[in-house]
Amino acid sequence: MSWKRDLLNNSRDALIEIINRTFNGEAQKVIELGKAYVNSFRRGGKLLTFGNGGSAADAQHLAAEFVNRFRLDRSPLPAIALTTDTSVLTSIGNDYDFNDIFKKQIEALTTSNDIVLGISTSGQSPNVIHGLKAAKARGAYTALLAGAGGKAMEDEFDLVIAVPSTETPRIQEVHLFLEHLFCDIVEQMLFGEE
Amino acid sequence: MSWKRDLLNNSRDALIEIINRTFNGEAQKVIELGKAYVNSFRRGGKLLTFGNGGSAADAQHLAAEFVNRFRLDRSPLPAIALTTDTSVLTSIGNDYDFNDIFKKQIEALTTSNDIVLGISTSGQSPNVIHGLKAAKARGAYTALLAGAGGKAMEDEFDLVIAVPSTETPRIQEVHLFLEHLFCDIVEQMLFGEE
Ligand SMILES: O=P(O)(O)OC[C@@H](O)[C@H]1O[C@H](O)[C@@H](O)[C@@H](O)[C@@H]1O
Ligand SMILES: O=P(O)(O)OC[C@@H](O)[C@H]1O[C@H](O)[C@@H](O)[C@@H](O)[C@@H]1O
Repeated sequence: MSWKRDLLNNSRDALIEIINRTFNGEAQKVIELGKAYVNSFRRGGKLLTFGNGGSAADAQHLAAEFVNRFRLDRSPLPAIALTTDTSVLTSIGNDYDFNDIFKKQIEALTTSNDIVLGISTSGQSPNVIHGLKAAKARGAYTALLAGAGGKAMEDEFDLVIAVPSTETPRIQEVHLFLEHLFCDIVEQMLFGEE
Repeated sequence: MSWKRDLLNNSRDALIEIINRTFNGEAQKVIELGKAYVNSFRRGGKLLTFGNGGSAADAQHLAAEFVNRFRLDRSPLPAIALTTDTSVLTSIGNDYDFNDIFKKQIEALTTSNDIVLGISTSGQSPNVIHGLKAAKARGAYTALLAGAGGKAMEDEFDLVIAVPSTETPRIQEVHLFLEHLFCDIVEQMLFGEE
């Protein structure tokens, strides 16, 4: 067996193990996240979401599922990824601080009816934490989707979902799965046939 | 048990089953994809990648892993996501045809040394297929990452990886896993300690 085959097989085993471990407690929290979105939506609120690198990609993926569709043909749902306007991002990074790129956008856009989801595999990226703290200060519902390092943030925000792993790619893969579950639950709660 | 718990558990079972099915044949093809990238890189080529919705997010995620880093601190690797310049995307969509948004960029940017990766869960999105065909016409190495529907395209491109499922979110989750394996193999081939 070549090292490449071993890399594939070991990665698969690790992913399945982390999925199963996430289902011992953490995965159920996406039901809370779904309920928080529905509550926010019913009060006229929206989802604001952000992260770095792969988690920026996730924020945009999530916004697309809400605004366009996940499974169902239904009316558009409010969600905005704060990772896409490169004029806003570079001007804040250049004039103030890269750690403020989400915080300043949150201050511009968030109301107390909103739900704000930060995504960080380390659970520690300063720009994500600053963004969530700004959202908390504005009275929004705050959630952090993280890896094992997110546990340390559990007292800070309304909901912390911490995938029990420290391996960035595996955490990201489980994040995408949890984000899809979140979409599925919201669509079913709002538009599903009971 | 509530329907929400059932949704979670059934989705987990489906994901694990699809991961395992993908490992019966398709997953190994990421080794070919890794080798194709390394070949392209050694000839001065680059990765161009694109898709719609969640697959656009994947294209950007991949470009970030290559340009910045996956696991290793190493020199930047050439990769461009063709999903990010909204001026280019909207002008092509508005003046020509939405189905040409990747094709025209490919015609502007691709050389025969490049590797071009289209991502489509259906394996059928016209803008993705048109983009890949334009890349093939320019002599680039062409790869399609798809769901079960990609099988029908196997004779068209150099490599087709078809995750054996028709469920968009589950296909996307397995795609992200395969994309990470692709990054891992490339980093190890180019920078790993033998
Ligand atoms: O700890 P996070 O907030 O998830 O931040 C990690 C990101 O900045 C990116 O770091 C590296 O570039 C890679 O591991 C990326 O996949 C990751 O998204
Ligand atoms: O078949 P594809 O090329 O993957 O295209 C699907 C996308 O346009 C998007 O369609 C819906 O909006 C959702 O299923 C998204 O997740 C998906 O990326």
